[in-house]
Amino acid sequence: MESCNLPPPRLAVHTITTKPWSTEQCIEKYAAAGVGGITFWRYSFEGRDPAAVGRQARDAGLEVVSVARGGFFPAPTEPARREAIDDNLRAIDEAAAAGAPSLVLVCGAVPGQALADSHAQIRDGIAACLDHAAAAGVVLAIEPLHPMYAAERSAINTMAQANALCEALGSGPNIGIACDVYHTWWDDALEAEIARAGAAGNLTAYHICDWLSPTTDFLNDRGLMGEGCIDLPQIGRWVERAGFAGFHEVEIFSGRWWASDQDAYLKRIVDWAEK
Amino acid sequence: MESCNLPPPRLAVHTITTKPWSTEQCIEKYAAAGVGGITFWRYSFEGRDPAAVGRQARDAGLEVVSVARGGFFPAPTEPARREAIDDNLRAIDEAAAAGAPSLVLVCGAVPGQALADSHAQIRDGIAACLDHAAAAGVVLAIEPLHPMYAAERSAINTMAQANALCEALGSGPNIGIACDVYHTWWDDALEAEIARAGAAGNLTAYHICDWLSPTTDFLNDRGLMGEGCIDLPQIGRWVERAGFAGFHEVEIFSGRWWASDQDAYLKRIVDWAEK
Repeated sequence: MESCNLPPPRLAVHTITTKPWSTEQCIEKYAAAGVGGITFWRYSFEGRDPAAVGRQARDAGLEVVSVARGGFFPAPTEPARREAIDDNLRAIDEAAAAGAPSLVLVCGAVPGQALADSHAQIRDGIAACLDHAAAAGVVLAIEPLHPMYAAERSAINTMAQANALCEALGSGPNIGIACDVYHTWWDDALEAEIARAGAAGNLTAYHICDWLSPTTDFLNDRGLMGEGCIDLPQIGRWVERAGFAGFHEVEIFSGRWWASDQDAYLKRIVDWAEK
Repeated sequence: MESCNLPPPRLAVHTITTKPWSTEQCIEKYAAAGVGGITFWRYSFEGRDPAAVGRQARDAGLEVVSVARGGFFPAPTEPARREAIDDNLRAIDEAAAAGAPSLVLVCGAVPGQALADSHAQIRDGIAACLDHAAAAGVVLAIEPLHPMYAAERSAINTMAQANALCEALGSGPNIGIACDVYHTWWDDALEAEIARAGAAGNLTAYHICDWLSPTTDFLNDRGLMGEGCIDLPQIGRWVERAGFAGFHEVEIFSGRWWASDQDAYLKRIVDWAEK
């Protein structure tokens, strides 16, 4: 499969991609490999000051792209939904402290709860965070998740739903979409919905990896770019045509790759981008 | 979860649901349990005459609802696509011989092949079978598969795509859709697309089971109705409102249930429908 032909400075890596590494190792290794940006998973801040972590990244020459992840708004009771909002307000603060311009939202779902109810709770949850996000200068980036996660991880499963949600929330400067190819590659509306997001100024982030065939695990069997069946060059052209000029963020959950030599793995990621 | 409140004669069972049973056992046990219809998987005909199998089912008091499955039209080469068409013509003959009014199509996909190319090959493959289906009196029922199967099982992943495909093929009397809740429950266009299929006379079959949360296997971890998160009463109302008056066909792939006592399992299926 043809590569995206991206210059390496446009490549960012999510810390979960190299899960065996500490936060400090991620910063040091990504910078040394010529990666341009880093997205911190919240666990990367554990026992650390997010502001200090952000500073370390920038001092190493990395741009802090985003924090992953907030969301999980739906819950069966009002106190639980309030708690979810409070946790998102804290995540916004962490993102702001780290100097990350955006927070990725995995919106949430409750097994057995009607998806329409979850949609309403997601909309209300995000709405309750928007003023705080604006004050903090953080964009809330709604990430549609693959429909196989609709029962318990996110009731927002297509770019069309994410676009509609952004629009329902006013499409302001603090709301946007993180489009991850893993979740969206199968959708024949993808090109049109990427264009719709771009036209509304809602295309905040672009995540890349690959879909393996067969996939053997629902969570941790994503592929490195080029290993699977996603036409990354084509989707890359769609996001660029939609006006997106941000990082192509590598986010790979993979038990197989996590068990491998992480230096060699990172080299393969960077080599793919430089091809 | 509330049951569909269906009288038992409207319940059909797919032979793969009780995979440990022979074809003869399926016929005998389903009839004894008061199930009204049977859908034969093609493996159920192995070493048997489909006409004789169909006769046995009817003699036992079962209606032969369908044969599963044809399809798998996309392939990288023309000879392989021709071979797929030939196999579908044989499947149509088997369905007709067994007295089944329809053949379910799992349309197929090729890992790494553009989904748009697979769509075209699927359309062409079905088109090449339509005259034969008409002569045999068999409806080809396109089954949209969950997007998690887009890489290798079906490039038709939503009811919207199935509707568009039927319409592109002329929506004649020998083309239709098998709507399976396992593949479609997550889709917020489901109600509208079921209505669209019904209005065009394309709602041929309705398959039921449940989606477990979490799901642990991509193929064989479906739930018995009521075990998971699908709102079957609601979707049942949608298909009925769309004018569908056929069987509610139980199709469950489950290593867990296959390892259990099949008589007790069948009783649970029938009890669910009678609730």
